[in-house]
Amino acid sequence: MNDRLKKETEYANRVLEDHAVLMVSGSQKTVIDAMNYSILAGGKRLRPIFMKAAYDLYEGENPCLDTFMAAIEMIHTYSLVHDDLPAMDNDLYRRGKKTTHAVYGEDMAILTGDALLNRAYEIALSAVNSCREVNDKINAVKALSVLSEKAGIYGMVGGQVFDVEAEKKGIELNGEDIDFIFRLKTAALIEAPLMMGAILSGAPGEDVKTLEMTGRKVGLAFQIRDDILDVTGDEKELGKPVFSDKKNNKRTYVDIYGLEKSEKDCEALSREAVKLLGSLGRDTGFLEELVLSLIDRRK
Amino acid sequence: MNDRLKKETEYANRVLEDHAVLMVSGSQKTVIDAMNYSILAGGKRLRPIFMKAAYDLYEGENPCLDTFMAAIEMIHTYSLVHDDLPAMDNDLYRRGKKTTHAVYGEDMAILTGDALLNRAYEIALSAVNSCREVNDKINAVKALSVLSEKAGIYGMVGGQVFDVEAEKKGIELNGEDIDFIFRLKTAALIEAPLMMGAILSGAPGEDVKTLEMTGRKVGLAFQIRDDILDVTGDEKELGKPVFSDKKNNKRTYVDIYGLEKSEKDCEALSREAVKLLGSLGRDTGFLEELVLSLIDRRK
Repeated sequence: MNDRLKKETEYANRVLEDHAVLMVSGSQKTVIDAMNYSILAGGKRLRPIFMKAAYDLYEGENPCLDTFMAAIEMIHTYSLVHDDLPAMDNDLYRRGKKTTHAVYGEDMAILTGDALLNRAYEIALSAVNSCREVNDKINAVKALSVLSEKAGIYGMVGGQVFDVEAEKKGIELNGEDIDFIFRLKTAALIEAPLMMGAILSGAPGEDVKTLEMTGRKVGLAFQIRDDILDVTGDEKELGKPVFSDKKNNKRTYVDIYGLEKSEKDCEALSREAVKLLGSLGRDTGFLEELVLSLIDRRK
Repeated sequence: MNDRLKKETEYANRVLEDHAVLMVSGSQKTVIDAMNYSILAGGKRLRPIFMKAAYDLYEGENPCLDTFMAAIEMIHTYSLVHDDLPAMDNDLYRRGKKTTHAVYGEDMAILTGDALLNRAYEIALSAVNSCREVNDKINAVKALSVLSEKAGIYGMVGGQVFDVEAEKKGIELNGEDIDFIFRLKTAALIEAPLMMGAILSGAPGEDVKTLEMTGRKVGLAFQIRDDILDVTGDEKELGKPVFSDKKNNKRTYVDIYGLEKSEKDCEALSREAVKLLGSLGRDTGFLEELVLSLIDRRK
């Protein structure tokens, strides 16, 4: 598992170097520098890895895969850049590195996020445009359409909005609210790569649906683990302060359900995700191990 | 001309109501409300009008036209919402109405801009996805790819970055800099709708190229007119304060070249644009009058 994960992470990083990182030149060089900085600031590259893993389950050969892997990581990155802004979470560090606005200023960080979001669609559309096989093109449009839904107001941005608003208005979140936020803010962008990989590879519609449900469960479990780690984790390993939710007066899954039930729910969700993957009747070994490792992680 | 323009503006507004405005519901209702507010805050709807006018020059029947008209206006709108932010131009009014962050707060305005940008691609991709004719789909991908280029770091955002940076660093802009900013920040998003309308309608490649050049000239002339109006305009008619560039210590076209040459250049550019349109050998009467009216405008 570790070898495979290492290989896939390296592949994802290479894809980002090739498709997302830009030559720093021209009068826009500051924003390009800031885009590269944000993309290369690290991270698990989970979303592109999930996309390729789902793609590899089937026999497709769609030339858009690599570009789409880069695109989803760019969309994830833009959301972090804007999330960290002073008007939002006001974070100066992420993964032990200075955040984009801390290095480039607030105005440039706003524009860097905008640029990353737009650039994701730009490289993706350019790939679809130069796709020769009509069938590959049709699947690529379908996959990109999924990405835009899951990243938008009925997906990631929608969850973000509710999260920000609840905090600002001091709304005491209940279990349903937390579910909504987790599902939109986190799970949507894990559902997306699993679905996209499968669609690009020509998977049947019911498999795409199963992978969407898998992504939802993984996303929820991932986020519950995050809330658990915020209480039990090690600052150095995490690369961010613990008890940050408490400090921000943020009500977490652990606050509502307690540590024990949180651990239980997290494990149950991951078991359900693994079961769903098994139901595909494909070689889902790597995906299953990946899901389990995410739930067991310490950072 | 006025009747036709009125008709086309009404059409563009109806298209926005149908494709851009959303039902205010769900836990995301604040951001949806803010998106609707931003879109409906008025404006000339120039970009969708240009797209349809270019489309109407040819005989295509592409079902994506309306959605793409809405998408480009949403991208234009997101750029204004982010432009007005405290960390950027810090404007509380636009077109006589409160800006988005003035009504909904800074965090919500950042998210509203993000949501509008993503939603533009979401509705556009959904339209391409449900497009039945393969040829229409191929053209639609091509048109959407143009939009993403012209809206990105080698287009609108790129111009915006240089503009913001020059102001922050107190760089004394020269003629070449101003040209760069005008071409990217303004002209790119006028080139785009002209090209997109033609591509959707199946125009030959050389016509798309001619329309791109036309858009560039119109964009430059439009922006020079803006700089002229900032000195000679009437605050009430403009719906914004005059001498705002001076107050912001912003070096304008008029500062560099003086009023007389600015007027001359503006007229020359519009004449060149009209000539380019004439060279298409199509019924470009409405487009030509539209271009001339933009250069002659008082607001």
